[in-house]
Amino acid sequence: MDLNDPLARFRERFKIPADRVYLDGNSLGALPHGVTERVTRLIEQEWGDELITSWNSNDWIGMPTRVGDRLGRLVGAAPGQVVCTDSISVNLFKLLSTALMLRPDRKRILSQRDNFPTDLYIAEGLASLLGPDRCTIKSVPADALLHALDESVAVLMLSHVNFRDGSLHDMQSVTKIAHERGVLVLWDLAHSAGVIPLELDEWQVDMAVGCGYKFLNGGPGAPAFLHLAKHHQQRAAQPLSGWMGHANPFAFRPGYEPAADIRRFLAGTPGILGMAALDAALDVFDDVSVKEIRQKSSALTTLFMKAVSKLDLPGIRVITPSDPAARGSQVSLAHENGFEISQALIDAGVIVDFRAPDIVRFGFSPLYNRFADAQLAAASLRRIVEEQRYLDPAYSQRPQVT
Amino acid sequence: MDLNDPLARFRERFKIPADRVYLDGNSLGALPHGVTERVTRLIEQEWGDELITSWNSNDWIGMPTRVGDRLGRLVGAAPGQVVCTDSISVNLFKLLSTALMLRPDRKRILSQRDNFPTDLYIAEGLASLLGPDRCTIKSVPADALLHALDESVAVLMLSHVNFRDGSLHDMQSVTKIAHERGVLVLWDLAHSAGVIPLELDEWQVDMAVGCGYKFLNGGPGAPAFLHLAKHHQQRAAQPLSGWMGHANPFAFRPGYEPAADIRRFLAGTPGILGMAALDAALDVFDDVSVKEIRQKSSALTTLFMKAVSKLDLPGIRVITPSDPAARGSQVSLAHENGFEISQALIDAGVIVDFRAPDIVRFGFSPLYNRFADAQLAAASLRRIVEEQRYLDPAYSQRPQVT
Repeated sequence: MDLNDPLARFRERFKIPADRVYLDGNSLGALPHGVTERVTRLIEQEWGDELITSWNSNDWIGMPTRVGDRLGRLVGAAPGQVVCTDSISVNLFKLLSTALMLRPDRKRILSQRDNFPTDLYIAEGLASLLGPDRCTIKSVPADALLHALDESVAVLMLSHVNFRDGSLHDMQSVTKIAHERGVLVLWDLAHSAGVIPLELDEWQVDMAVGCGYKFLNGGPGAPAFLHLAKHHQQRAAQPLSGWMGHANPFAFRPGYEPAADIRRFLAGTPGILGMAALDAALDVFDDVSVKEIRQKSSALTTLFMKAVSKLDLPGIRVITPSDPAARGSQVSLAHENGFEISQALIDAGVIVDFRAPDIVRFGFSPLYNRFADAQLAAASLRRIVEEQRYLDPAYSQRPQVT
Repeated sequence: MDLNDPLARFRERFKIPADRVYLDGNSLGALPHGVTERVTRLIEQEWGDELITSWNSNDWIGMPTRVGDRLGRLVGAAPGQVVCTDSISVNLFKLLSTALMLRPDRKRILSQRDNFPTDLYIAEGLASLLGPDRCTIKSVPADALLHALDESVAVLMLSHVNFRDGSLHDMQSVTKIAHERGVLVLWDLAHSAGVIPLELDEWQVDMAVGCGYKFLNGGPGAPAFLHLAKHHQQRAAQPLSGWMGHANPFAFRPGYEPAADIRRFLAGTPGILGMAALDAALDVFDDVSVKEIRQKSSALTTLFMKAVSKLDLPGIRVITPSDPAARGSQVSLAHENGFEISQALIDAGVIVDFRAPDIVRFGFSPLYNRFADAQLAAASLRRIVEEQRYLDPAYSQRPQVT
């Protein structure tokens, strides 16, 4: 399969440790070649030699929208609707505030009970700040979402791919149903941008946020992105109204006047180093379509799931949907000793991660993962489970940090 | 004076273009040697080779507090009270929200009319979100501040050094008076951290924010910092309650539970590249005290102000206080053609900046600026003003960006 893989040539564009099978690109993407050079040039020449003038001469000031438009292309959003800035958490706060403002007769944020925690925490922070008269949260199981979409809901906030089991929402149809009920949609694309074809414009998505450091390979803590559909922008205000979102930041006028376009969703001075790394990391996407990436992703997860189910390992449950169209680019296995198994896999050179209470996640990043990686991971898992290596007491004592 | 300068040796620790006099370190500090190496190591080894495991093995997860404590030492705050995170704008939003929460019987944010705009814009954003029943803003001229400190005021938000004229507040006495009236203080240290000795603990400052990319030389858009005095932390909540501020972020629990310490002021995943650059830039401060830096700063600004007033240039007004103890590390000159003069200076190799409506700012960064720089800048200014070079129409047509 690797020999016939049309995307096999992309692996050499990344730095991949030779002695490991890296299946955690859904948490931190591997390093693309070219990033070090780009960041070094930025530091030594743009900052070191040209100093403050680089805000103009090297267009640092335009980076949030320039990189934003590159990200927009990957998610099906025409230029002028995406900015690269801040973190997902901060961007969610901006957009949830905006959503409540755009639906002044409604006050509810609807979400999924096992949405990624930071999404729910941020909604909670906003609701605490505004109080129950202006903002409430309802979070329900996935199968109760459509039923809960009533006229009390201002915005439906969902992650496209669930971080635990890798299951996928049908973004187009959920968005359509929400709109029929007057509800805005805010999608978290953390686990789908760059690995699942998205058509935010065509599907009439109102708002979205996404992550730079997972399948986009932008580096640790890379800046996130924020999307707001053009037709909402003129009416949209957001409370983190820092100077970079001002219509004329360098006039230093006393009153806030939002930029006419998507830049009104910027807040403080953008982090140029991190954004330059992400910008360089995006170059690889100029040479491949997300559709091709998705095809290989489906084949990788299918191969791995088949291998695991053939092994029929005691205590292991596959919790990721068996239909490739219903899952993202990860496979999640549950086992009561999931944490210890994840540690034993890491010690065996298969880098995966663990998500409480019992989930081992295998993330497949099609630009650099090989079909051989899926086979090696399954073989390693077999040895660990069959030989009960995970019962080594050293594993259970390890701290869980990431 | 340069020959007798005990700090002269620090200039070689920075990359300074040989053909320019750089007097804009108050806007973007020069590049310290060692930053490129640190960031390259982070990218190639920590990210490229060790990948996701670096969150533990290289303690990325501890960076916001570790770098925060280093910053705390520079501003007189004991460990556990400063985190390095987000931008000043975002951090102001958190702390203003906290201040209103800590003073539930008060709703006013008091500030200075010509505070740095982003500070006022963020207050405005919060006030718009909360509405006039819960938050109002009053901004008054500097000389009316103390009079306005009454029992309606929850928090006094001030910049230590004014970005336009470089004038300095007496942080200790203003804080004391505010406290006598039950008012919390929030200081913006953007133009003082690293160049003016501060004693946040001794002066009982409640809250502060500061900038990584000015006198701390952390690079373009370096992460900012946030300070909250220890005795407030247990009661302090903030609305940008992202997962990094959670008591146990990797438990992925559904409800937000703030970290027991200053980490509750973190929001999303921290930008590791930018923070590593700042961390490396701080190394120079291990070898020099802020008190020594301040002595040289006063001498530099004094020399420049004397040179300018001796020239007695037509139309030029010095608007920075003549008492060194009453100003920061910049000298501001006003002239009706200030913008054109700033552009002519830049063309002559003297990098300054312009602030509307008519101010040319000369920032002195004592770790790398020489006394000769002050003399060269004054001489260049003399030629430009006496020969009226600034009347060249090309200058007035330039866009003002930074």
